[in-house]
Amino acid sequence: MSDFARLWAEIAPIGRDPRSGGYLRYAFSEPERVLRDWFRNQADRRGMTVTDDGNGNLFAWRGEPWASGTVLTGSHFDSVPHGGGYDGLLGIVSAFLAVDRLPRDARVAVAAFAEEEGARFGLPCLGSRLLTGAIDPDRAAALCDADGVSFGEALGARPAGALPNLAERIAAVVELHIEQGRNLAEPVGVASAIWPHGRWRFAFGGDGDHAGTTRMEDRHDPMLTFAYTVLAANKEARLAGAHATMARVAVEPNATNAIPSRVLGWLDARAAESSTLDALIEAVTKRAVDRAGRDGTRVTVEPESVSPEVAFDTALAQRLARLLDGAPILPTGAGHDAGVLSAHVPTAMLFVRNPTGVSHSPAEHATDADCEVGVAALARVLEDLT
Amino acid sequence: MSDFARLWAEIAPIGRDPRSGGYLRYAFSEPERVLRDWFRNQADRRGMTVTDDGNGNLFAWRGEPWASGTVLTGSHFDSVPHGGGYDGLLGIVSAFLAVDRLPRDARVAVAAFAEEEGARFGLPCLGSRLLTGAIDPDRAAALCDADGVSFGEALGARPAGALPNLAERIAAVVELHIEQGRNLAEPVGVASAIWPHGRWRFAFGGDGDHAGTTRMEDRHDPMLTFAYTVLAANKEARLAGAHATMARVAVEPNATNAIPSRVLGWLDARAAESSTLDALIEAVTKRAVDRAGRDGTRVTVEPESVSPEVAFDTALAQRLARLLDGAPILPTGAGHDAGVLSAHVPTAMLFVRNPTGVSHSPAEHATDADCEVGVAALARVLEDLT
Repeated sequence: MSDFARLWAEIAPIGRDPRSGGYLRYAFSEPERVLRDWFRNQADRRGMTVTDDGNGNLFAWRGEPWASGTVLTGSHFDSVPHGGGYDGLLGIVSAFLAVDRLPRDARVAVAAFAEEEGARFGLPCLGSRLLTGAIDPDRAAALCDADGVSFGEALGARPAGALPNLAERIAAVVELHIEQGRNLAEPVGVASAIWPHGRWRFAFGGDGDHAGTTRMEDRHDPMLTFAYTVLAANKEARLAGAHATMARVAVEPNATNAIPSRVLGWLDARAAESSTLDALIEAVTKRAVDRAGRDGTRVTVEPESVSPEVAFDTALAQRLARLLDGAPILPTGAGHDAGVLSAHVPTAMLFVRNPTGVSHSPAEHATDADCEVGVAALARVLEDLT
Repeated sequence: MSDFARLWAEIAPIGRDPRSGGYLRYAFSEPERVLRDWFRNQADRRGMTVTDDGNGNLFAWRGEPWASGTVLTGSHFDSVPHGGGYDGLLGIVSAFLAVDRLPRDARVAVAAFAEEEGARFGLPCLGSRLLTGAIDPDRAAALCDADGVSFGEALGARPAGALPNLAERIAAVVELHIEQGRNLAEPVGVASAIWPHGRWRFAFGGDGDHAGTTRMEDRHDPMLTFAYTVLAANKEARLAGAHATMARVAVEPNATNAIPSRVLGWLDARAAESSTLDALIEAVTKRAVDRAGRDGTRVTVEPESVSPEVAFDTALAQRLARLLDGAPILPTGAGHDAGVLSAHVPTAMLFVRNPTGVSHSPAEHATDADCEVGVAALARVLEDLT
């Protein structure tokens, strides 16, 4: 059994739902706390010092914490509901195993970022946004989960916010991650860019009433406007060569025999160009508003998070691709902490092949052999950068 | 303050959500237990004996419980989520106040039926179905709420099931209820029939995947099939002159950035004729299946409850309408315990005017003056029948 397979087997059961086979590793949930303990334990075994940054992010240091010139690697613990086991954790496991292969004096740290998926508090990359000052700590503290628990309560404190002089302390960031599309035919690739993307909350308001007795012509049913918008987003995205998804919905009162008074739908949209994304949101909004006019309902649209395009350091990506014997360079539609950090520090990402392309699903998978190639590639890259 | 207004003010706060103004009075919930205590208290004040039938239904008797020739009146405590306060409870409050106006020897009982809305365990009129033998007690016991609590657990026992010789014990049933459409211009009307109606569960299966990275052409997104079916049900119902509503949905995993693996949608459908209802369900199913073929998804349709047309006793309805000085006789699209009971016992319903027609919503309303006319009408009807 390889080092990778052994370490992977240790953490694979943590937070796995026995029914779906997917993971429930929400930020600060019990399984995520078990992973945090596991992280501290892995650092101890390697003589690494663990610190947290007061934002929910954990760091394991070879050498002095935050010493100038440290190269940072790692990823995140948290999952989407019933997500795959590789998304995030593969980057942390690979980071520890890559550190094992580095010379003793290599100045390197392993990071575990909090709430990357935004599955609990709604805003993805919350930990890295706080660390880099991309979000106000008070706004982050007030974000609430579905049970009304705030991020500040879950953290147990007001977030510390931006770390001063991040760019002087961290020489480079490298995040290894499972690839999430079908774009990588080799075991390992290097990221070129992250598509601009975001989340918009569509609130469809209507008039609650009895489903059995209300005449069809008297209804103001917001479910109709929602349904039309789901189909419109799909059509507009196809026309634009973009991606649009409405995968999350909340209905009030969500009863079989009561016309809803309100339907909330979240639009996830992404495109290669910001102009395409902007036009897509405008087109979907227009179609939703037009339909609301016909349904006698109301619609409001609010952006919850919008991330501009991230172009990773091109020279760095090309250097790493050469170092990895000509690994392919490819963009991705998925957001990552590395994208947030890239605005402050030279940043690169390595992708490990995903044979089916499936992610955010129990069916997500990478082979042990590809993961081992990933660990070796990360070690070579870190050695080159330190 | 009238007797009605005083008694109404006593129970109006029970189970009301301060935010929505609607009611959360699910079967065997804390507010519904408070209402059960209130019911026992009202019976005590009137010297009525309270029994339960082992199915979750409560009865308050003037005279010997289940004595031959008793006339039964009453309705239900439970609400849809954030429903109105009149639906159900108006019939129980009016029943006690009508009993006050009857001669001491009038053999009458007030009933409170369990789980009429089906909002907790999914099957409407569960209490009256059990009492009349319309559902097997073991099947009812196994019905589960959203938290996995079964009806049997909530009841604390296996349901007792059908009461023998119901028709010999109960001479007639009269349920007073707020009208739920816009069909009643007078303070009080008499029911002619309940439209055939039912609930069908549509399960849309697809392939969970990452919303950001999965190409549009590679998706099998069940939310699209659901959305199309919502619009198709609306169109088909309008064409058929029927009612169709998809107001309840459950998405797995319901995460912003994960294409769902499964969407459940419940169709509530009603029509004046069974043949129209059957054709409507067939048409909606066909359109859902066709769309699933185009989306690369799967759909299965299961009836959860289907109620045939109820034609109330025509001679009885005409007699009551004459007794009430020519009250209008009208059908309804809403199901009621009286509909279930009418298969066994001569049954009638009185409706109290609903000025806006809104029901299953916090906006449901009837005026005190109309409710007082309702109490007087119910007393006249009960006196005539006993």
